Amino acid sequence: MNELTHFNAQGQAHMVDVGNKSTTHRVAVAEGRIEMQPDTLAKVLQGNHKKGDVLGIARIAGIMAAKKTADLIPLCHPLALTRVDIALTPLAEANAIHCRATVETHGQTGVEMEALTAVQISLLTIYDMCKAVDKGMSMEGICLLQKTGGKSDNWKRTADSN
Amino acid sequence: MNELTHFNAQGQAHMVDVGNKSTTHRVAVAEGRIEMQPDTLAKVLQGNHKKGDVLGIARIAGIMAAKKTADLIPLCHPLALTRVDIALTPLAEANAIHCRATVETHGQTGVEMEALTAVQISLLTIYDMCKAVDKGMSMEGICLLQKTGGKSDNWKRTADSN
Amino acid sequence: MNELTHFNAQGQAHMVDVGNKSTTHRVAVAEGRIEMQPDTLAKVLQGNHKKGDVLGIARIAGIMAAKKTADLIPLCHPLALTRVDIALTPLAEANAIHCRATVETHGQTGVEMEALTAVQISLLTIYDMCKAVDKGMSMEGICLLQKTGGKSDNWKRTADSN
Amino acid sequence: MNELTHFNAQGQAHMVDVGNKSTTHRVAVAEGRIEMQPDTLAKVLQGNHKKGDVLGIARIAGIMAAKKTADLIPLCHPLALTRVDIALTPLAEANAIHCRATVETHGQTGVEMEALTAVQISLLTIYDMCKAVDKGMSMEGICLLQKTGGKSDNWKRTADSN
Amino acid sequence: MNELTHFNAQGQAHMVDVGNKSTTHRVAVAEGRIEMQPDTLAKVLQGNHKKGDVLGIARIAGIMAAKKTADLIPLCHPLALTRVDIALTPLAEANAIHCRATVETHGQTGVEMEALTAVQISLLTIYDMCKAVDKGMSMEGICLLQKTGGKSDNWKRTADSN
Amino acid sequence: MNELTHFNAQGQAHMVDVGNKSTTHRVAVAEGRIEMQPDTLAKVLQGNHKKGDVLGIARIAGIMAAKKTADLIPLCHPLALTRVDIALTPLAEANAIHCRATVETHGQTGVEMEALTAVQISLLTIYDMCKAVDKGMSMEGICLLQKTGGKSDNWKRTADSN
Repeated sequence: MNELTHFNAQGQAHMVDVGNKSTTHRVAVAEGRIEMQPDTLAKVLQGNHKKGDVLGIARIAGIMAAKKTADLIPLCHPLALTRVDIALTPLAEANAIHCRATVETHGQTGVEMEALTAVQISLLTIYDMCKAVDKGMSMEGICLLQKTGGKSDNWKRTADSN
Repeated sequence: MNELTHFNAQGQAHMVDVGNKSTTHRVAVAEGRIEMQPDTLAKVLQGNHKKGDVLGIARIAGIMAAKKTADLIPLCHPLALTRVDIALTPLAEANAIHCRATVETHGQTGVEMEALTAVQISLLTIYDMCKAVDKGMSMEGICLLQKTGGKSDNWKRTADSN
Repeated sequence: MNELTHFNAQGQAHMVDVGNKSTTHRVAVAEGRIEMQPDTLAKVLQGNHKKGDVLGIARIAGIMAAKKTADLIPLCHPLALTRVDIALTPLAEANAIHCRATVETHGQTGVEMEALTAVQISLLTIYDMCKAVDKGMSMEGICLLQKTGGKSDNWKRTADSN
Repeated sequence: MNELTHFNAQGQAHMVDVGNKSTTHRVAVAEGRIEMQPDTLAKVLQGNHKKGDVLGIARIAGIMAAKKTADLIPLCHPLALTRVDIALTPLAEANAIHCRATVETHGQTGVEMEALTAVQISLLTIYDMCKAVDKGMSMEGICLLQKTGGKSDNWKRTADSN
Repeated sequence: MNELTHFNAQGQAHMVDVGNKSTTHRVAVAEGRIEMQPDTLAKVLQGNHKKGDVLGIARIAGIMAAKKTADLIPLCHPLALTRVDIALTPLAEANAIHCRATVETHGQTGVEMEALTAVQISLLTIYDMCKAVDKGMSMEGICLLQKTGGKSDNWKRTADSN
Repeated sequence: MNELTHFNAQGQAHMVDVGNKSTTHRVAVAEGRIEMQPDTLAKVLQGNHKKGDVLGIARIAGIMAAKKTADLIPLCHPLALTRVDIALTPLAEANAIHCRATVETHGQTGVEMEALTAVQISLLTIYDMCKAVDKGMSMEGICLLQKTGGKSDNWKRTADSN
């Protein structure tokens, strides 16, 4: 049996019925990182303190993207988000910037997709602003860390998750 | 000197002037992959042939997302794309699906961001459709492969890029 | 008296107040069809089974369009849809493809417009994908079949409806 | 051979390459009508002259929708429209309102989809504004009338088109 | 202490958590005006009665813009509006058109931003339609008049507000 | 004669034909300001240097809004902007923040609306981020400063403009 719930018995895509799911407080946390040349990271960090606030703009882009998730992901339900928070942390040793997005709602379905979208577009915005000096940057490890709320058991990433 | 071109001399973000750049044929190719449990990949492949076409829907989502790039990335110029092509290839040994997006335009600025956005949203749509059975999937190696066109030298990913 | 509720006493358009309407389970079903040359229908059906999945893409387009209804129809209220389902059925004798959309919400106003938008954009997407071989296709019989939920009596299409 | 150009040799959807098509003046004209109860048409016409301008709002909705076409139709190219005109004509004997949309561009691909989208959303907006008094209205005969410009022969609807 | 609530303790922007705020009936009223040459106002008023309904189109644009507020204002929460009403009043002595927008919701956060967005885009649409004859028009006095609902005290504009 | 060009001879709105206008370099500059309590301005300026970058976020919001102009203003033509620059300047004596937006394109119609939209949404974003401490802020003097390019004479604001 195919348990991919976005398809009906005939294998046709549909937006699944969440009308009977309870309206609860739901939280999802996702992460990812963008790896770059050491020089690029130095430029971002310099700008962050003095001028050219790459991380501030990436944060805004990620928050705005979370609100567009249902417009981007075909079978995603529209949701009224109650909170979006994005933390961008330079990883000096790894020559990378880490992104962690937390999204919350009080609704009938989870916000994993919104958290992942926020991570992706935050990282992509960093790419956009640094690509003049470093086209080789790559985005890695974009995944869900945890979700709570809803009828299904809460989920938390473990060493076995991937 | 800070060479991040999205900031002016005062460190303030702006959409950079591309009005003097020539209108040329520009191509960008980007890639990335989503890693999953072997069972999840099996379900996707089964659906691909028989029912529940995960990859077909992910392809459409990626194409549509490429058209929304300037709406998602704050300082990105709007562009009239002339071609978008997305190839999704199962990687049986790696338990992953690989995505490669090619975007073209005849315009005044490149389409790297459009190609990367297409890859990200294609992969994220696969995540959405498979998350009921595998929340631990992760997206990896999202990066630019090459770009051609425009005044700057063409660029191609090499072993030294990252 | 003019009973078109989208206008106030001065005849000025407004988004009517639904704040006092009860939040109930609401369902709307709409339909329509696109008529084409026999050869065109054959091409679509061939693709549906083997390659070039016209109907799969039209289904996705319709689902995504349902989510954009309040953005398209000026006086329509934004709504959090809880289900969208689109059935596309070839009508061999009529040389047509029939579309039936079912949309549900738990909200303060009905989802007739969302169901009709889904039908229209599904059919229009079929047109787009087949227009290289048949520009003469026409879309016919786009209408509401039934609606339930809300304070007003349920409504069902009858022979007298049109 | 399958000549549906929106699919590649593997049957996978793509946004076709229009980069080599010439930039020419392109025009498309589409039409359609919404049929209603005689009383409904009377209310619309009364409003049109005195208050509650249904047709004026439908015209604006159609123009705005033409600009959103590439956002609605998955494989449609984004285009910079140079003109959109929508004519709404009451058909007293047929108890209907007829819509005719003319769209123009100077671009690399035609504007049939934009003209058809404008017709559909204009008619649907009329439905929205009249549905409080007549849920049985239906939209009929939505089709392309003619297109000019581009390399392919000009096309004009004839008695044999459908 | 910095009490700008859109920033966390580190000064980083976030979409503030409204998940614990109660769902109540919330209303916001905003206003503004566009000043123009006497001749321009005469043209608008002539059109309003006979043809070329500038105010009718501006009203529709304002209502549609209210629905897009969360898409325009980065840290604004998406909200399901239950009512939008826009009143446009010519001010003959001041050679201006006054706009007053009333927006309502039953939600967890207020609708001040939606009311202000509706005023801005209504006025801007008047500018667009009259700019062929008067580029010097200016928009003035765009501000909140009152808000009710929610836990915080109701607020009403007074002579001391500005 | 009514010279409001957005209406045809019957007084019906249309998106005017710009297909015969020449593709030239076009620039528009617009301005406006938001007036606030002295304490509010102090908080914004404090944040600008140390934390809570209100002006940085308002700048991004204005740039993104310029790209959405054709989606907001019903009869506005879509345009590929080649540059957007927004300068936000505190006016200490006036207890205000001044916004000046410069927008450029190489296209067939001007970018006045894009520049004005950028000013409005930048100011409105400042309002959003400061409204927790000052609901009485008002937006004033939003107007076009100059436009160049195109067939019509260049225009520059003078003392007689308003």
